Amino acid sequence: MKRLGYDGPVSADNKASWESVTVSTRIIQQLPETKSSYMIPAGEGDRYVFGTQVASIMANARSIGDSLEIVLLCGGRGDHFPLHSHEQASEAIYVLDGKLEVQIGTQKRLLTTGDYAHIPAGIPHAYKMLAHRTRFYSVTIGGEVSDFYRKIGESYERHERPHLPQDALTSEKWGEAAEGLDIRFVDVSSVAVEIPLVDNGTVPDRVVPYILENGDGDHTLSGDQVHSFLSTQAATGGGYIVLMSSGPKGQPIGEHYHEITNETFFCIQGSMTLWVDGEELSLQPGDFVYVPAGVKHKFRMDSHYTKFMGVLTPGSFEGFFRILGDPYAYPIFPTEPAPYRFDRVIQRIAELDLKVTGRPPGVPGPADGKHESA
Amino acid sequence: MKRLGYDGPVSADNKASWESVTVSTRIIQQLPETKSSYMIPAGEGDRYVFGTQVASIMANARSIGDSLEIVLLCGGRGDHFPLHSHEQASEAIYVLDGKLEVQIGTQKRLLTTGDYAHIPAGIPHAYKMLAHRTRFYSVTIGGEVSDFYRKIGESYERHERPHLPQDALTSEKWGEAAEGLDIRFVDVSSVAVEIPLVDNGTVPDRVVPYILENGDGDHTLSGDQVHSFLSTQAATGGGYIVLMSSGPKGQPIGEHYHEITNETFFCIQGSMTLWVDGEELSLQPGDFVYVPAGVKHKFRMDSHYTKFMGVLTPGSFEGFFRILGDPYAYPIFPTEPAPYRFDRVIQRIAELDLKVTGRPPGVPGPADGKHESA
Repeated sequence: MKRLGYDGPVSADNKASWESVTVSTRIIQQLPETKSSYMIPAGEGDRYVFGTQVASIMANARSIGDSLEIVLLCGGRGDHFPLHSHEQASEAIYVLDGKLEVQIGTQKRLLTTGDYAHIPAGIPHAYKMLAHRTRFYSVTIGGEVSDFYRKIGESYERHERPHLPQDALTSEKWGEAAEGLDIRFVDVSSVAVEIPLVDNGTVPDRVVPYILENGDGDHTLSGDQVHSFLSTQAATGGGYIVLMSSGPKGQPIGEHYHEITNETFFCIQGSMTLWVDGEELSLQPGDFVYVPAGVKHKFRMDSHYTKFMGVLTPGSFEGFFRILGDPYAYPIFPTEPAPYRFDRVIQRIAELDLKVTGRPPGVPGPADGKHESA
Repeated sequence: MKRLGYDGPVSADNKASWESVTVSTRIIQQLPETKSSYMIPAGEGDRYVFGTQVASIMANARSIGDSLEIVLLCGGRGDHFPLHSHEQASEAIYVLDGKLEVQIGTQKRLLTTGDYAHIPAGIPHAYKMLAHRTRFYSVTIGGEVSDFYRKIGESYERHERPHLPQDALTSEKWGEAAEGLDIRFVDVSSVAVEIPLVDNGTVPDRVVPYILENGDGDHTLSGDQVHSFLSTQAATGGGYIVLMSSGPKGQPIGEHYHEITNETFFCIQGSMTLWVDGEELSLQPGDFVYVPAGVKHKFRMDSHYTKFMGVLTPGSFEGFFRILGDPYAYPIFPTEPAPYRFDRVIQRIAELDLKVTGRPPGVPGPADGKHESA
């Protein structure tokens, strides 16, 4: 089982810990320049420090081949990003650790571990970290945003945020770094109209800002796995969906690929195994894998409570989860599994972006996850 | 590297996932009846369900041989424990997930991931879970408490909390379960005097109730590891200390044992390797290991950000960390490591409960952690 490989230069101080592990071209330190599957283990990624914050670029337009960008931000108490808006890009925020005060329009909300915010294009927003080691994923789609961190920050070799600021952040620096990107700083006094913010625990059926508490979302149940939509096509305008999947230790799902849907796997809790084009990857919390359209994959949940997030572009694969499973009222998987409705999937396979190469997805295979392709 | 072994009966539905792993007598499902080292992997432990809460007993007087008891509690929104006090036992609460409203005397505080509360004997307290899948460790010392869950609950084979209540919890049940134990239910109206609650981010130097936010504590730095006291001897009356250790990927510390100090290892974030009497154990978040006095051990941090908690009984080993390291103002390890002051440890070794069997603790050994005993 591959784990923590590394194909970049090995510096003197981390040589000892790297040299004994398997090297893989798929497990990367630098983002690829062409669309391909890749894994970024927890703490890796292209990293930039600004003040006491570190931005790790997990995916950008070059690596992904479309306009999805993923950045992991880590900072401490008081670290912030001033009020700004994106003309083109909508943004999803998922909090991993700490306390994040998010301002959307004129309203502020405190997000903690597992909470989620969705901010459509054009909506002014800001954040302030209120706890030591606050960490969150920022997923943007539709505009170029992630280069901001390379421009405002310095390339950073370490893996954890610094305890003291590395540089002085002047307002000029913020402004210069945003030039040419889809980031426009906004004066709070210019946010005249109160922007409605949905925070009733549901995913809105239109493109408006909303927040979800950990465990909120639009849940479906298939087998013993709960797939919770944090964002649906209706909420994003169709460009992407965000799905949180949780379940107990189980069997691998069937191997498959998509013709147009690109997938990301963010391991959030517990451990899981992902097979990408037959290669076995062991994921722990913080590990990230990108699986573009056309690449065969399947997964298995390996812990008593396993949870992973997926951002799927475009959002049209949403229907699969609603066909395979049924609506479910709880954020936790049930004591007795529900049926996998693969009968319904087969009936409607023509309308789904799904090419099955192994056992049908959702139908458990052998425990060893042995490669099953024809 | 051993992982997730199991020595209990194998039921039909989990057979497939268990049978391929190494079996060890140290990695347990049922608590031992005599004092010995043991490991409980995440999600295991003696489990009891009451309502929609699950209590996992990680350590009790029988397994530990003294009055330390450790219970992992997991529940959902609205799950609670009524106001009560312990005549003998003091209690430490460490929140793993979700949102926990803790009432201490007449005051309520909201704790989230990484927050900590200390409640001395005699102080009325209660909790209410405010988020889906709230989980926390309850550590009690000085009185018999943990049998409460066996008495109020039903033995539970599953690993995750149920989505619906398993039984009706009447006030009679609560009262009956507390009989003969160090739990006395308290009417809120009888808490006449306002009990002072320290919440200024520091560990008090006397035995009073206090709470710490994630990252608060009394920090010392040795090498590249931050050891943060969540409870000191002064705060507990000497019976125990609670220590949070964090650091980057590193080398193993030197093997050693203690003549009177018993240690616990709670892996909180990242991954680590623990060697117990020469046996190599790989720990992920949620894994727990008990190492009693007399048993040789050492550890290595394996992730870019590794964090583990230790409860040490009695508390007298506190001095070691203050001699090996120096006071430190930050909750995050520095960009440049500090020296390990093993020179000071050697000078004062006579007053420390420390028997070195390998390389000195705090002095990095070979990366492979090869057993070094004489």
